[in-house]
Amino acid sequence: MHRAPVNFEQKFGLFNEQWAPKVVAEMNDYQFKIVRLEGDFMWHEHEETDETFVVLEGTLRIDMPDGAVSVNTGEMFVVPKGVKHKPYAEREVKLLLIEPRGVLNTGHEGGERTAQNEQWI
Amino acid sequence: MHRAPVNFEQKFGLFNEQWAPKVVAEMNDYQFKIVRLEGDFMWHEHEETDETFVVLEGTLRIDMPDGAVSVNTGEMFVVPKGVKHKPYAEREVKLLLIEPRGVLNTGHEGGERTAQNEQWI
Repeated sequence: MHRAPVNFEQKFGLFNEQWAPKVVAEMNDYQFKIVRLEGDFMWHEHEETDETFVVLEGTLRIDMPDGAVSVNTGEMFVVPKGVKHKPYAEREVKLLLIEPRGVLNTGHEGGERTAQNEQWI
Repeated sequence: MHRAPVNFEQKFGLFNEQWAPKVVAEMNDYQFKIVRLEGDFMWHEHEETDETFVVLEGTLRIDMPDGAVSVNTGEMFVVPKGVKHKPYAEREVKLLLIEPRGVLNTGHEGGERTAQNEQWI
């Protein structure tokens, strides 16, 4: 059994790259990933699943077709499955993502911004 | 669509009772629940699912048959399915629980400490 709790700050201290989610824990077939975001991502959607964003530090704007939501430190937001969205962070934001194992950060869009999956830290 | 992010502090400001989890969001068939814990709970297990504890404020000790883990502010721990555990908090702790919809706080033990399920806030 994995005995130690996951400390988010300690984990973030291990890397500086942005847009590269790292798995820190699993619950059944779901994964907890931490990631540093800054700037603009691409529009994408996840047809099969909701996606949870928990902001650990900073402010994340999530643009959606019918409006944007601003998620600050100590807040979370669930993007429903099938809803197109585009994350944006004016300054670097530290984020906890929760989603089923195997979900790609770019959804079905693919392309050069697709991150390597299943990278643990 | 639910447009506003969930602000944990704002939600905790709406209740003071302990050991009474409140649902704040759902992701597919999983629920995010916030709860205030203080003191000792009962030994129980969840045979069908892992259970995730994210400590938002305070220190939670999770006793398990082969040892205890201490989870502090900004840390998370996943109790694997089938593992007996007993949460304990010397002082009040504010917690985010993540688990499938329908899971009871007392597992299969039942009894007077079983909380009402599906209570949203």
